Amino acid sequence: MTHQPRASFKSPRFAQPATFMRLPHVEDPTGLDVAIVGVPYDGGTSYRTGSRYGPREIRNQSSLIRSYNYFQKVAPFDRFNVADVGDVDPPPVSIEKAYEAIDARIGAIADAGARPIAVGGDHSISLPILRALARRHGPLALVQFDAHIDTWDEYFGGKYFHGTPFRRAIEERLIDGARFIQVGIRGPMYGEDDFDFHREHGITMIDIDQVKDRGIAWTIDEIKRVVTGPAYMTFDIDGVDPAFAPGTGTPEVGGLTSHEAQRLVRGLAGLHLVGGDIVEVSPLYDGPGQITAVLASNLIFEFLCALAR
Amino acid sequence: MTHQPRASFKSPRFAQPATFMRLPHVEDPTGLDVAIVGVPYDGGTSYRTGSRYGPREIRNQSSLIRSYNYFQKVAPFDRFNVADVGDVDPPPVSIEKAYEAIDARIGAIADAGARPIAVGGDHSISLPILRALARRHGPLALVQFDAHIDTWDEYFGGKYFHGTPFRRAIEERLIDGARFIQVGIRGPMYGEDDFDFHREHGITMIDIDQVKDRGIAWTIDEIKRVVTGPAYMTFDIDGVDPAFAPGTGTPEVGGLTSHEAQRLVRGLAGLHLVGGDIVEVSPLYDGPGQITAVLASNLIFEFLCALAR
Amino acid sequence: MTHQPRASFKSPRFAQPATFMRLPHVEDPTGLDVAIVGVPYDGGTSYRTGSRYGPREIRNQSSLIRSYNYFQKVAPFDRFNVADVGDVDPPPVSIEKAYEAIDARIGAIADAGARPIAVGGDHSISLPILRALARRHGPLALVQFDAHIDTWDEYFGGKYFHGTPFRRAIEERLIDGARFIQVGIRGPMYGEDDFDFHREHGITMIDIDQVKDRGIAWTIDEIKRVVTGPAYMTFDIDGVDPAFAPGTGTPEVGGLTSHEAQRLVRGLAGLHLVGGDIVEVSPLYDGPGQITAVLASNLIFEFLCALAR
Amino acid sequence: MTHQPRASFKSPRFAQPATFMRLPHVEDPTGLDVAIVGVPYDGGTSYRTGSRYGPREIRNQSSLIRSYNYFQKVAPFDRFNVADVGDVDPPPVSIEKAYEAIDARIGAIADAGARPIAVGGDHSISLPILRALARRHGPLALVQFDAHIDTWDEYFGGKYFHGTPFRRAIEERLIDGARFIQVGIRGPMYGEDDFDFHREHGITMIDIDQVKDRGIAWTIDEIKRVVTGPAYMTFDIDGVDPAFAPGTGTPEVGGLTSHEAQRLVRGLAGLHLVGGDIVEVSPLYDGPGQITAVLASNLIFEFLCALAR
Amino acid sequence: MTHQPRASFKSPRFAQPATFMRLPHVEDPTGLDVAIVGVPYDGGTSYRTGSRYGPREIRNQSSLIRSYNYFQKVAPFDRFNVADVGDVDPPPVSIEKAYEAIDARIGAIADAGARPIAVGGDHSISLPILRALARRHGPLALVQFDAHIDTWDEYFGGKYFHGTPFRRAIEERLIDGARFIQVGIRGPMYGEDDFDFHREHGITMIDIDQVKDRGIAWTIDEIKRVVTGPAYMTFDIDGVDPAFAPGTGTPEVGGLTSHEAQRLVRGLAGLHLVGGDIVEVSPLYDGPGQITAVLASNLIFEFLCALAR
Amino acid sequence: MTHQPRASFKSPRFAQPATFMRLPHVEDPTGLDVAIVGVPYDGGTSYRTGSRYGPREIRNQSSLIRSYNYFQKVAPFDRFNVADVGDVDPPPVSIEKAYEAIDARIGAIADAGARPIAVGGDHSISLPILRALARRHGPLALVQFDAHIDTWDEYFGGKYFHGTPFRRAIEERLIDGARFIQVGIRGPMYGEDDFDFHREHGITMIDIDQVKDRGIAWTIDEIKRVVTGPAYMTFDIDGVDPAFAPGTGTPEVGGLTSHEAQRLVRGLAGLHLVGGDIVEVSPLYDGPGQITAVLASNLIFEFLCALAR
Repeated sequence: MTHQPRASFKSPRFAQPATFMRLPHVEDPTGLDVAIVGVPYDGGTSYRTGSRYGPREIRNQSSLIRSYNYFQKVAPFDRFNVADVGDVDPPPVSIEKAYEAIDARIGAIADAGARPIAVGGDHSISLPILRALARRHGPLALVQFDAHIDTWDEYFGGKYFHGTPFRRAIEERLIDGARFIQVGIRGPMYGEDDFDFHREHGITMIDIDQVKDRGIAWTIDEIKRVVTGPAYMTFDIDGVDPAFAPGTGTPEVGGLTSHEAQRLVRGLAGLHLVGGDIVEVSPLYDGPGQITAVLASNLIFEFLCALAR
Repeated sequence: MTHQPRASFKSPRFAQPATFMRLPHVEDPTGLDVAIVGVPYDGGTSYRTGSRYGPREIRNQSSLIRSYNYFQKVAPFDRFNVADVGDVDPPPVSIEKAYEAIDARIGAIADAGARPIAVGGDHSISLPILRALARRHGPLALVQFDAHIDTWDEYFGGKYFHGTPFRRAIEERLIDGARFIQVGIRGPMYGEDDFDFHREHGITMIDIDQVKDRGIAWTIDEIKRVVTGPAYMTFDIDGVDPAFAPGTGTPEVGGLTSHEAQRLVRGLAGLHLVGGDIVEVSPLYDGPGQITAVLASNLIFEFLCALAR
Repeated sequence: MTHQPRASFKSPRFAQPATFMRLPHVEDPTGLDVAIVGVPYDGGTSYRTGSRYGPREIRNQSSLIRSYNYFQKVAPFDRFNVADVGDVDPPPVSIEKAYEAIDARIGAIADAGARPIAVGGDHSISLPILRALARRHGPLALVQFDAHIDTWDEYFGGKYFHGTPFRRAIEERLIDGARFIQVGIRGPMYGEDDFDFHREHGITMIDIDQVKDRGIAWTIDEIKRVVTGPAYMTFDIDGVDPAFAPGTGTPEVGGLTSHEAQRLVRGLAGLHLVGGDIVEVSPLYDGPGQITAVLASNLIFEFLCALAR
Repeated sequence: MTHQPRASFKSPRFAQPATFMRLPHVEDPTGLDVAIVGVPYDGGTSYRTGSRYGPREIRNQSSLIRSYNYFQKVAPFDRFNVADVGDVDPPPVSIEKAYEAIDARIGAIADAGARPIAVGGDHSISLPILRALARRHGPLALVQFDAHIDTWDEYFGGKYFHGTPFRRAIEERLIDGARFIQVGIRGPMYGEDDFDFHREHGITMIDIDQVKDRGIAWTIDEIKRVVTGPAYMTFDIDGVDPAFAPGTGTPEVGGLTSHEAQRLVRGLAGLHLVGGDIVEVSPLYDGPGQITAVLASNLIFEFLCALAR
Repeated sequence: MTHQPRASFKSPRFAQPATFMRLPHVEDPTGLDVAIVGVPYDGGTSYRTGSRYGPREIRNQSSLIRSYNYFQKVAPFDRFNVADVGDVDPPPVSIEKAYEAIDARIGAIADAGARPIAVGGDHSISLPILRALARRHGPLALVQFDAHIDTWDEYFGGKYFHGTPFRRAIEERLIDGARFIQVGIRGPMYGEDDFDFHREHGITMIDIDQVKDRGIAWTIDEIKRVVTGPAYMTFDIDGVDPAFAPGTGTPEVGGLTSHEAQRLVRGLAGLHLVGGDIVEVSPLYDGPGQITAVLASNLIFEFLCALAR
Repeated sequence: MTHQPRASFKSPRFAQPATFMRLPHVEDPTGLDVAIVGVPYDGGTSYRTGSRYGPREIRNQSSLIRSYNYFQKVAPFDRFNVADVGDVDPPPVSIEKAYEAIDARIGAIADAGARPIAVGGDHSISLPILRALARRHGPLALVQFDAHIDTWDEYFGGKYFHGTPFRRAIEERLIDGARFIQVGIRGPMYGEDDFDFHREHGITMIDIDQVKDRGIAWTIDEIKRVVTGPAYMTFDIDGVDPAFAPGTGTPEVGGLTSHEAQRLVRGLAGLHLVGGDIVEVSPLYDGPGQITAVLASNLIFEFLCALAR
């Protein structure tokens, strides 16, 4: 393939301007199979901000990624042309203008025939990405790894923030409730009526106790049962326990381990995935080891390898 | 109920002076079912200090708590009047004077008919709390989540510090050895004679290997077998592994996960609990994400919900 | 006076829910001479976010403030009724709605006859505050301590963000260019035409080299020459050098020392000040000592004492 | 035994110059059964540096270690004379000179009849240690806990860095491939040919999925099957998951828990161990709680106790 | 001289167990001219704790000190036998017992003919040190660098805490008010009557504005005018501005710069100094660069050189 | 000019892969007037490592730089073609190989007719840069801002480390002692003979007391007196006080302020500068605000503007 990561035995991992997995930075997605794109927007955040720094820090920490996935037995850069296509430039002060910019850029990537892997930013960015992809692929199946359902209705009277994208996506017919599964849900909620929308639209939810009690293999089976047809993956890093992912804005204790998260993403191989995102990495809340960005880098790599199989 | 947390869709979670779970701050416990009270005393600490900042940081991080417990299926603020009654004002330089202040304040809360949930401070604060509660309820059963036994005898010739409260509590007949269970014990010790006192008083100890090997359900059964009659829960955050709770003064590796800790506290529902505490959260030793205070906030919420069922 | 800070020899400084300077938290401004109000809004930020946590952290660190100003020779709480009136609840996702909330709350404070000291939040909050105060007092004089001029025109096509409040304030006739002085300006700029607006409106700018070369006394004389009639002070903490105030979003090296900042604020005594704000404290960018919030607390205290003389 | 840790009930744990486990610092290894020695060299690091501070921080945090191992039922300081023999003084700028210094010092320790426990430093230090020990004991068996295989060949044309020590050790006949087992291997790799060397030399590798799926007991059985005769243990802290060990230079997510790590080291009791090391603790990448150095301290203690049984 | 710092060109600065300035650690003060002694006690702290870690961190950071003072033109280790005599072991939970331990150890040092430089610890430790030294030398002159006067009377009804040592020292006739000077005083106070005690006892106070306005040379002249006869220096690190010394418990903005602090200590050369201390370094409140401990190390070195001239 | 920084009103400052000052990243220096090049090598460090991360973090923080220098009245990107030419790829484990790589890359930049601004890395990198530039320009004048003289002879028997580059440069006739000036020197030293080399070669040294006492204008006059002909500037960030630049490896208290540093670099306008470097920024030792990298970014900008005038 044309694009290869910089060789770490010739250029030290800590050298050179940081790009995703030390891949070339190319602005034009033409000819790419997969385009990794930053979406540094966090204006939809209701609690701790800072995921606008997610793309830069994940670029930094993804320098550790090597080119072969031993567990998936795949060398993705030999199968795919992959590049860092830079960031969307979302205006920070207006969520509507940010949505326009994201939709336009993801649309251009999809139009060029590349599958986007978006690196957030907060979870509100998934909505304009789904708009762009559903325009091309029709209503999508969705697998969401998350502590939170993110199907609430409004926030201070507004329709858009990081707690509402998937209700909007259902309403706008971007995703199909019957092909939508949420994994890892937990934490205090507002009430049982939080799930009225789920029942109405046939959304499947697997809470954390189910994951822990029934296991990863069962969970993957459930995902494969629900997620059919063209599909999108959204991975909110707060699906993982704060011990493994402290750098996030709305931490919920009692979550997935990093090993469980890796295996879940590996389990997506074989689905018809048209894109994905990883969101809510907020580097300021991490420690100096930046283990959350390291984890996100690895989950992107697992996802890329799942695409490649 | 009169007291409700501030609504997060009208007042952002990060706004307003921080109180426990965004509840009203009322100094008078009259009319409360449960009084959450800070006890910012760390003068009994033998290693790393700083748990005097526990109450303030847990107030901060508990802003994330919502009002419904999905796993326990209970909305505690609909069943109980709960408030933040502020802090005890313990003189920092004298443990004897601090004990007097704690005993007096907890006594007043209990006299008002409210069950106290105390937020430490170091583990030495449990002794004056038990004094106040045993005065009202008689000798109590005790469930202790902890890495350490805290039944040592003396420290530099003194009777009071954070390693001795439960020996003193047995000696003062505040708790009953046969109804006392310790969960999660581990770490290097001084010798096998550390457990002489246990044998003498019939204290039950479940070490971390037993928890890991036999499981949470078995552990809860053991707790329910031992803890009968009026009971108190004390949760030393160092019972949890430092990966999940780095912000503490005497970390011991190889401990509970946050998910195990949540399930253990949930398992207390049905006991006759007259109060509880969570201690040894030392925010300076946490990272910027303050995941230890987030965990403590959730454990307080689980405990409150267990009381409410 | 009715309201006094909690006595630190009876309640330790680290105890109790944190309020500004350990003052009572009262929601109703009636009867107050000065109302300290948090404005946790940072949606107008173009670079590093996080000043939404300014009010809470400044509450925390202001616990160190005592009641007598030795250098100003004034005990402000003996002259004024001062309280923490809590925070404005600005919707985080919409700057327009946030502006409405801020304007309404500051208006209510002013209507109650209290002078507001607002604690930001980012610098965009000064505009709705000035709207509320100018409605009551007419066009105001303004003294701005800052590294940046904050009189740019637009950002991504929008009129409101933290770089434009004072251009808008001039345009809306909330402040009077001839009575407007900026102190401490420095840092790379966009071009000489950044100052066209200054020339057009007669704004006085004192850059950092003038402060350093001519001294604090000269600077105060200049302020007093320009600032006549009802006046407002806005203190952007990035006016101070990052060594003394690292916890901010747009740091500019080569700034004021903390001692210079204190003396400048002290020098405002005698002006006809109807309110003021301190903005852009972003605690996540500070170290564990939180020296920026400590500095902000002291500048609020100096400002309060300047009001009291 | 002559040497005992300072008694923590007479000298607070935070007092006195820090030595390993509060043991005496003696430069001369004569008469010791076990010599704990720092090797603060990190010049062989390809990514994040800083393990040169490992020995000092582990000394600091090992103050928490007490003298009795409840799980192993052994009091090592009653069976062994153990001391902190200080650090090797490796020149930081030259790996060749550093290797000479390490080899000489470990050789002297072994010649005095003491078994060395070396505290790194990066993983490149294992090679000169093995040189010194194999000179005395002949080719050794090796048990390696690690995320990485560390049997690569060259780095920028050089033979020595922290990714090559065990290839060199095989080549130099210091260790025996058939008696060499690696545990915990994971992370992205360069390709399947990374394992050619394993096949050629009969090295046994247990990857992390095998550990998770088959369990600790099975893993210990495998270790005991492979590791026969005089043996050395090398524990790269990155074998543990970054949640439990964030303070390291080449973090790989999805690793061992601290409890698994403790049990694995405990499982070495009964082997004929002539020494061991723990490496790659890089304190700057840890948080203020320094949980990685706390874990390393406990693993050293477990290893010491395994030696003592 | 017998004792020399470890040579940094033979043993790297980061190697070996940390001692003050890489000097030998000798427990017996016999034969020493100057004994540097840690006093890790912070139980007298009213706000932020943690100075119990001062001695260990200052040992760590003092590794940077070299052996020649270019500005004072003196090589102190050629003139004096200096060593690290370890720490006092103060019981953490009782200030009275801690005072006994400190008094005894300093007394032993003085009896051995060595001048002590004590490294705190909080400011309460100065009282037992002065007791030990006044017993030998009679009432002492005192030069105090500090933001706070530390001559308050009581705290929660107790006589001893870090705000009272010098009132007690006057009352116990350990120091002489007329030969007592305080430099750098600032910050909010309780009232003008804070200074009644000064007037009564003839204490000289130089506030920070006087230092800034009149200069360092004038300040040194004042010190030399007041401080006659056997004298003691106490340097509270919070005398320095938090920008230069963030790692402290009671920070006051607007303080000395590090350069001013160095020159002030240098200016003590020629006084008849019988000892000194540096206190209130609290490493947890510093950043990872630990610049406060670096500064403290340099001030100890300047003081040592001033003694040596 | 062809190359312009990304416009911050169209692309947010925190967006896109980070390059120096948001300039284009071009690998080929042809056509450039100034080439900013990272040199991430820290293998010459004797104390704290980590300056290998200097280039990446300075890229990050330099996003704040705007395009016009108000104090120098120059818009450098209108006068010069400037770009980020990426990093040298120095092998981390061998200083000799690293020197070859640096020399080759700087030579290629100079051969292309561009002036290099190198961003370290530790101070050892200045030697191969000077080799490359002296080959082209002949022996250079040198202005060095630094706390340390860096003209020592050997370290553990080696000729190359970060304390020796300028002795080597004199010996190799790359620079001319009579045209070499050092500014800001301070800190403990080894002895008066540290300056023998200075006297022998006519090197001018201005210590920090001279800077503070005689002022910046005098210092600039001295620089201009000494530095004639083709000249190089080397700025070790530890020349600045640790309060303003904590993120460095060998901090020395009592240094330059950031404002003094800016003025000194501005004062170089008019010299015949053929290149420069800024070294020893070690981001791990900075706080989360990364004020050291912010300062370095500004000093690079000041230097660039001085070149442009």
